[in-house]
Amino acid sequence: MSLHHASSGEKIDVRSLGEKLTQTTSTALLRTADLEVMRIVLPKGKSIPEHHVPGEITIQCIEGTVELQAHGANQILMAGEMLYLEGNVPYAIFALENASVLMTILRKADGG
Amino acid sequence: MSLHHASSGEKIDVRSLGEKLTQTTSTALLRTADLEVMRIVLPKGKSIPEHHVPGEITIQCIEGTVELQAHGANQILMAGEMLYLEGNVPYAIFALENASVLMTILRKADGG
Repeated sequence: MSLHHASSGEKIDVRSLGEKLTQTTSTALLRTADLEVMRIVLPKGKSIPEHHVPGEITIQCIEGTVELQAHGANQILMAGEMLYLEGNVPYAIFALENASVLMTILRKADGG
Repeated sequence: MSLHHASSGEKIDVRSLGEKLTQTTSTALLRTADLEVMRIVLPKGKSIPEHHVPGEITIQCIEGTVELQAHGANQILMAGEMLYLEGNVPYAIFALENASVLMTILRKADGG
């Protein structure tokens, strides 16, 4: 992942990557003691296997389509759709099309 | 503001409002003990006067163009651009065009 983290007042580009998507890697955009924001790039067919993190998260689909598995359900997230998950809820993400998603994670004192 | 708050695993629509923007009010999308997400609708010419909140925030422009004043600078945020602010940093937002922005706020124990 890219290691430049935004500081307070600095603009962060979270526009669609479009044709650049398949040449772009996932990027950590912001990381503070309490908050982490990253863009996960998922070319079609790629997935994030089931896992969980201690803190609450929001997952916002920036472009493309992903299937998100959590709470025993599969849901489709398209561009402009977001999903919230409590801390410690297992989830997996599978890219049905070239996709990028913005993840906002509340970090916990235990390192999440 | 609308008072429906998403629960864990529930999809949240943060797509552009487009022509519905001027008939739509700002909406609280999510509110937990530690996290708040809202869509602020700002028709052209409207503003949020300078204020500050205790917690860290990210401000993501969903559509339109806003001018954001913080840290002694004026910055333009267009659709797909985000800005991070530390807690207690005064900021103001002015809509240069019909705009909606997604605000993610880390809540603090003191009510922020």
